[in-house]
Formats: sequence, structure tokens, C-alpha cells
Amino acid sequence: MPDTTVDSTSPAPLTLLGLGAMGAALARTWLAAGHPLTVWNRSPGRTAELAAAGARVAATAAEAVAASPLVVTCLLDDASVREALADADLGGRDMVDLTTSTPAESRSRAAWASGRGARFLDGGIMAVPPMIGVPEAGGYVFYSGSREVFDAHREVLAVPAATRYVGADPGLAALQDVALLSAMTAMFAGARHAAALVAEAGIDQKAFGALVAEWLTAMAPSTAAYAGGPAPEDPTSAAVAEAGDAALLRTAREQGVDTALLIASSGAMEGV
Amino acid sequence: MPDTTVDSTSPAPLTLLGLGAMGAALARTWLAAGHPLTVWNRSPGRTAELAAAGARVAATAAEAVAASPLVVTCLLDDASVREALADADLGGRDMVDLTTSTPAESRSRAAWASGRGARFLDGGIMAVPPMIGVPEAGGYVFYSGSREVFDAHREVLAVPAATRYVGADPGLAALQDVALLSAMTAMFAGARHAAALVAEAGIDQKAFGALVAEWLTAMAPSTAAYAGGPAPEDPTSAAVAEAGDAALLRTAREQGVDTALLIASSGAMEGV
Repeated sequence: MPDTTVDSTSPAPLTLLGLGAMGAALARTWLAAGHPLTVWNRSPGRTAELAAAGARVAATAAEAVAASPLVVTCLLDDASVREALADADLGGRDMVDLTTSTPAESRSRAAWASGRGARFLDGGIMAVPPMIGVPEAGGYVFYSGSREVFDAHREVLAVPAATRYVGADPGLAALQDVALLSAMTAMFAGARHAAALVAEAGIDQKAFGALVAEWLTAMAPSTAAYAGGPAPEDPTSAAVAEAGDAALLRTAREQGVDTALLIASSGAMEGV
Repeated sequence: MPDTTVDSTSPAPLTLLGLGAMGAALARTWLAAGHPLTVWNRSPGRTAELAAAGARVAATAAEAVAASPLVVTCLLDDASVREALADADLGGRDMVDLTTSTPAESRSRAAWASGRGARFLDGGIMAVPPMIGVPEAGGYVFYSGSREVFDAHREVLAVPAATRYVGADPGLAALQDVALLSAMTAMFAGARHAAALVAEAGIDQKAFGALVAEWLTAMAPSTAAYAGGPAPEDPTSAAVAEAGDAALLRTAREQGVDTALLIASSGAMEGV
């Protein structure tokens, strides 16, 4: 029965729903690796570009789901996943949801998929689109939920970025994804706060941006202690830390910059 | 007149006021480099340890100031500098103030020092105490104010950490110091927020701390764009960014973690 035998060395087919910047980056790496890829997007968007690169463009999400045993979703939010798949037959499919969602949403989506006959694996992407398909950029994807789905599709999943399976609870990938994205958001906001402080000072802003990046890159390794459980012991006395915080607040007021980020930061340092 | 000739190759004498964790670290590196060092601290604190390492301990701040042509202050805050030096004769001294202060405080302290006959250089230390005297740790000190003071004492100042002179306006060092410290504070707060999110999830906290540090270290170079002037172009669409922010907020609420840092972060990203 040679015509039904799948050559285990040939790239496996898959379906991808969602062609935003991230979905399109994923699609390109799977196509480049030779995987037969069926895509669907709510709006035409990047479908023409991907069709030119070899993707089969499905007219509906249901048709796209029917095309492959493995269905990957990378949509705007969890509600978009539910809506896109409303009319699809998920029976017997393996579903991998890379949409950014909360832990509770991922658990709920896992139960929903199971109720419709699919095995479910949730993923949280720790990368921006330019890092996809560039292993040396250090991006990766947290996965949680069905270990069977993870193992069955490990090679396909490893094409766009490294994989890290973190547990059977489908909420664990989203939890760690969101935790890391939250920390990054605060870091980016800190950089914007710094830029706002010096905005009127006649400093070369580009050179200053390089200083900020250099400083944060040097200090980022020490966040391991802050994120690693109870607050670390600090050689700085409480009085010195308080005086330092006060100087940051006074400076923001002097420069006419909103103090909300500093106040919330102090709260986060004390509140855990 | 050999007894009045100063050998230009012998380490120059200096005075240091303030022996907190940072002051003591500075003192140790100057002593280790052979500089005759006079120290004073409001409380006895680390004076015995530094005396054993060769420092001369002055009984009063005025006596300490009288001992050396170069006077370095590393005190709790700007008010502490004014108080400590209230009775000291600054006439003819070169004063280098490494106390964390605001730009306006540094400018005011410069005018105050000038009125008392001293030349003034302000410094902002970009290092934690363990980085002092460890060039490979990458710490440095911003200096602004008197270029003459900076040039005259460049070698002494370079002993504890690399130096970066940023301008004649005495407020510029404090401004950039506080800006970078503010960005770091937000980054640390982000790491604490991440830790709070996963606190109840049964995740190995130490391993999680390492993940946070790895992620922030990888993403910190991209803060150059956020701190380097107008907001950078982002390949992520506004809708995707908004959906992502919303997922971070919903996750914080699900996990019972204060949303103030995320809300303030969104504000900082929009508000510049």
C-alpha cells in the first residue's frame, strides 16, 4: 500500500489559522522547511504572499482545519480562537494554540477542544516575529497541556523556535508566557520613563538610548533573584533604598514626568 | 625643596565622607590603590574596618575636609551633604558629590559649594557596591559640573569605576543617573510582578527566576529604541499590542496580583 504510506522523513503537513506578523513569520519558517502548509486568515492580509511561497490558502477556517491532522492557531486573542473554530470539525485533530491568552482561558479552551474531540496543547511564544526561524536569536515557545500532542509534533513545533514543555496543566504555558511578557513590559516602560526624564535636557537621545540598553542589559541578570521567590537580601540598607526611591520620585516631579510607574514599581517590590 | 615636592606618580590623598555600603566599597578600592584616605561617617559603622585597612578616621566632617584638597561625599541624600558640611571650610577644596540626588539638587549644591569657595563636580554611580573596583563588572560613574575638577582628579576618580563626563551643567550626571536607575527599578518591579503571578502555581521559583533573567537579558538591548527618542516602529499592529496588554491585565486579575504596574507601564509607553 505504497500510496498510503507516509514517509516518516518527509515534513509533516499542518494547518495554521492566523496570519498576523507572528503567524506569517511562523508560516514562512514551516514553508521554508518544506512542510505542506494550509493557511487561513480572517482578512486576506498576507495570504497572497504566503500562497506565492507555497502555502495552500483555505477559504474558510473549517476547510483549513479539515486539511491537516495538526491545527495551529495564532490569533488575536482567545475569543478569536473560539469564533474562528465555531464551525470547524475538530474531531481527531491535534490542536496547538499559540494565541496569547490567560491561564484560565487556556484551561477553558483545552476543555472546550476536548469536548469537541481534539487533543489540545497550549503554547506561549517568547519571541518577537523577527526572532522566529532564527535559532541564535534565543526565542522559544512554552508548551503545556497534552504531552502526547507535544511528542507527536515535536519536530514540526521545533521549526520556528525552540520548545519548552512545562507541564500537563494547560494553563502553565500561558502563565509563564504572560509573566515574562509582563516583566518585559515593565522594563520597556522603564526605558520610556528614562527617555521622558531626559527629553528636554539637550542630550543626544540615540546615544542615551544606547546607555539605557547597556545598563539594563548589565543589570538584567540580577532579576533572577527578584523573580526567584522571596525578595533577595540586599546589601543596600532600607534607609538608602528609601532615599534612592525618593530621589527618583523627586526627579520625575522636577522633570514633569508621571510618577505612576515609580510608585507602582515600589508597590510591586514590597507587595510580593 | 624636596620635602614640599609631591611625586606626581604617588597616589593622591583624598577625603571621603559617608561609609555606607557604597562609601565603604569606594574607600576600600582607594586604600587598595595606595591613596592616603581620610574618612568620616556620621555613625562609627565601618570606620574600624577601614582604619585597619589604612584609612585615617576624622572625628568630625570639618576635620576630614581640612585633611585633603579633594573631598568626596557619598551620603544618604542631598540634605545629608548640606548638614554634614555645615561647619566645614570648603575654601579652596575640590568637592565631588557622589550622593544620589536630583538634577535640581545637584545644581543647587554646585552653587552652594561655589559660594563657599569650592569647585564642584557631581557624580552619579551606575553600579552596585559589589561592582566597585571590579572593572569587568561594567560599572561606571557619570560626572558633570567642573571640567577642571574632573581633569585634575581623573586618575583618582577612575580607581573605583570607569568615568563618563557628560557636561558642565552640574545636573546632567544626576539626570542620567536617576533616569537609568528609574528604568532599572521598573525592570526589577516587572520581575517581582512575574514572580507574584506564578507564586501559587507550584513552579520551581528559582528556575523561574533564571527564566525571567534570561528573557530580560535577551530583550534588554531592544530598550535602546524605547529610550532613544520617539517610540520605535513596531511590526506588531496596534490591535495585537492592545490584545496582548489586555491578556496581561486579565492574567494579573486571575492570579490576584495588583495591576498597578501594568497600568502604569501602559501609561508610560503612551505618554512620552
